[in-house]
Amino acid sequence: MNMYDLILKKRNGGVLSKEEIHHIVMGYTEGTIPDYQMSAFLMAVYFQGMNPQETVDLTLAMADSGEWLDLSEIHGIKVDKHSTGGVGDKTSLIIGPMLAALGIPVAKMSGRGLGHTGGTIDKLESIEGFQTGISREQFIENVNRVKLAIAGQTANLAPADKKIYALRDVTATVDNPSLIAASIMSKKLASGADVIVLDVKVGSGAFMQTLEDAEELAKTMVSIGTMAGKKTYAVITDMNEPLGEMVGNALEVQEAIQVLKGQGEERLTKVAMTLAAYMVMGAGKATTVEEAEGMLQETIDSGRALDKFAEFAEAQGGNPAFIYEPERFPKAEYIEPVYPKVSGYLVACKNSEVGMSSLVLGGGRETKESVIDLAVGIRLVKHLGDAVQPEEPFAYIYANDKKKLEAARERLLNAYTIQTEPVEVEPVIKKVLF
Amino acid sequence: MNMYDLILKKRNGGVLSKEEIHHIVMGYTEGTIPDYQMSAFLMAVYFQGMNPQETVDLTLAMADSGEWLDLSEIHGIKVDKHSTGGVGDKTSLIIGPMLAALGIPVAKMSGRGLGHTGGTIDKLESIEGFQTGISREQFIENVNRVKLAIAGQTANLAPADKKIYALRDVTATVDNPSLIAASIMSKKLASGADVIVLDVKVGSGAFMQTLEDAEELAKTMVSIGTMAGKKTYAVITDMNEPLGEMVGNALEVQEAIQVLKGQGEERLTKVAMTLAAYMVMGAGKATTVEEAEGMLQETIDSGRALDKFAEFAEAQGGNPAFIYEPERFPKAEYIEPVYPKVSGYLVACKNSEVGMSSLVLGGGRETKESVIDLAVGIRLVKHLGDAVQPEEPFAYIYANDKKKLEAARERLLNAYTIQTEPVEVEPVIKKVLF
Repeated sequence: MNMYDLILKKRNGGVLSKEEIHHIVMGYTEGTIPDYQMSAFLMAVYFQGMNPQETVDLTLAMADSGEWLDLSEIHGIKVDKHSTGGVGDKTSLIIGPMLAALGIPVAKMSGRGLGHTGGTIDKLESIEGFQTGISREQFIENVNRVKLAIAGQTANLAPADKKIYALRDVTATVDNPSLIAASIMSKKLASGADVIVLDVKVGSGAFMQTLEDAEELAKTMVSIGTMAGKKTYAVITDMNEPLGEMVGNALEVQEAIQVLKGQGEERLTKVAMTLAAYMVMGAGKATTVEEAEGMLQETIDSGRALDKFAEFAEAQGGNPAFIYEPERFPKAEYIEPVYPKVSGYLVACKNSEVGMSSLVLGGGRETKESVIDLAVGIRLVKHLGDAVQPEEPFAYIYANDKKKLEAARERLLNAYTIQTEPVEVEPVIKKVLF
Repeated sequence: MNMYDLILKKRNGGVLSKEEIHHIVMGYTEGTIPDYQMSAFLMAVYFQGMNPQETVDLTLAMADSGEWLDLSEIHGIKVDKHSTGGVGDKTSLIIGPMLAALGIPVAKMSGRGLGHTGGTIDKLESIEGFQTGISREQFIENVNRVKLAIAGQTANLAPADKKIYALRDVTATVDNPSLIAASIMSKKLASGADVIVLDVKVGSGAFMQTLEDAEELAKTMVSIGTMAGKKTYAVITDMNEPLGEMVGNALEVQEAIQVLKGQGEERLTKVAMTLAAYMVMGAGKATTVEEAEGMLQETIDSGRALDKFAEFAEAQGGNPAFIYEPERFPKAEYIEPVYPKVSGYLVACKNSEVGMSSLVLGGGRETKESVIDLAVGIRLVKHLGDAVQPEEPFAYIYANDKKKLEAARERLLNAYTIQTEPVEVEPVIKKVLF
């Protein structure tokens, strides 16, 4: 098998066999296929696409490039969730305790990553004493006992994806549904869960800007998961503005706690509930969404989900008092209101600008070496469709540095479009595929 | 300017500016743009194409990556010819002496290259004493005095093309008309001629398999040449079988001599005459093809073209007696007839197999280090449309090694399709564009 012939075959619209795809992925991971052939191949895939079977074969080849997590020591049907990414997304922190309260095991490996805030494990570190670097044994034991553990990713999951993604990132070959789906699903499959629920974001602040594109990606990922023998659901959710009120690290944990107290912002609560409901159904604990949502609501109403969050935190060395007394979280020195410049309605949001205001405050990582300021961030009190006026703040900035605060304010003011006529607000749950 | 953005722009069907194309070509030539970005870009060009202005800009940027030959010391309008390549193409050896006999200066730089036979300069070295490594001064002086010089290419012409071609060759991005045209024309423009006549081959043995593709390439090259201020013609010629009877080095020189004696094979003679006629017109020596062909025919009938060949050979150190006494050329030890296995008509030819039989005999180079056997080759006495029968040879093999001879025979038998019904033979001159 020769890489030149495989590039040519794909360029001419041919369908690659499982063996050919395996050859490409392994050859590239091991370095026998050079970058310049792989990037030409990826561009050919961008134009010619891959059919469902090729996409599954690509995903499995990438998953097989590293180890598969062995979660067989965990009792019960293991569920996992993945989001395609957006600003203010803290649903993992809400869903985990609810599911664990229902006895459904959640074993989550999470990265730190770069971005406008830290990853889930950075956020959790705002709880005093919380350890994400726990051993494999501790991780398994915690899931079996508490039903929830979240650890930093140490395993060598899908190294092919890491190498291929780095190349796509510099050769304008990122945005192809098969390549995106294979990248996400290779890691998810190797992570060992039995049930996968995907949160596919759509809108101006998401990778997929149109419902059509989001549906195509969702369909592709569901078909990969299903063909690989996993129960897979995809929920397409709105990302035309940040999800919920808070953007930041400690701030997002506090907002998750609010939701678990039954006092969460409406759209955030709806997304978390819907994703969790499909995880409950996937785990075989309910047969309809209504039934599952009823069970989840009960974990909130009874306080069991909140207690589970505290128990989970404690099991990983964290101080459980933080869950009940949010004033213990790290605090920003300055909390300043941001006033809109004109009256009208919020009609559009540049999520990337909201994200950047969190980043300039120090809430995220620009490089792998950046140290995150866990206390800083943004609170958005007005949402798309809301009326605003210059006397009333639409947001608050939590900062530890006056200069950074002003930079964040400028970005935040720039993020929103205000018009005299209101717009119809998009429903937050667009569609569910399985 | 950022290569990522330029890849993205082309991928999305955008039109690149002159500055952007210059940035890509210079960056890649100098090594600041890596192979993997260039190959992704080239694949994007394969799918999205380049418009005429982009193609001209690409060609000029590539031509500008090295030196432009200064032929200003040569008197008169300098003409040049380029063929897109085929088996048995020895028209340069015929055209040069005819034009020189008419006083039109031909200053030809030629490479050795890889392939089924050597390049033009390899072929000329079968004339005893012939030197292709002459100095620049000698080259210019010979053109001014004899009107013809052919030297090995020493100048650093269009180094960008060399680097880009090597990358295209391993990334399945060769066959795009803009890239092919820019590759050919960048070197032709830098070679300094005033008039360029392009022989665009079409057919099963050519790079362009359909007349439509050949016309597109021809049109693109003519428009590049014209926009760069050169008088440019493209003649589309048939390459469904090798051109003429001989494939080899010394054998092809001898066949060229036959044509200059007025005893050449019909189709080869027609192609050489037509190409030369447009060069005569480009040089301003005739206004119609008929007039030009009449002048060229006179150089043959009078023997002036043959004498010019001898004069040219002598000027570069060669023994002029070879031109008049072809028996002096290096001879193969074995000359063996090849008989068809069945009766019928020759209806199709795999040129690559004919080329390979020359290569296996030792007539071409497999690697840069290969030493060419100038004496070996093939003589094809039957052509497409001809009736053949097992008692009559359709070809002869000239070999210096029995084993190689048998390998060549097998390939040659495999090269032709024989059927009971004859086929219509394609005219050798398809179309002329200017």
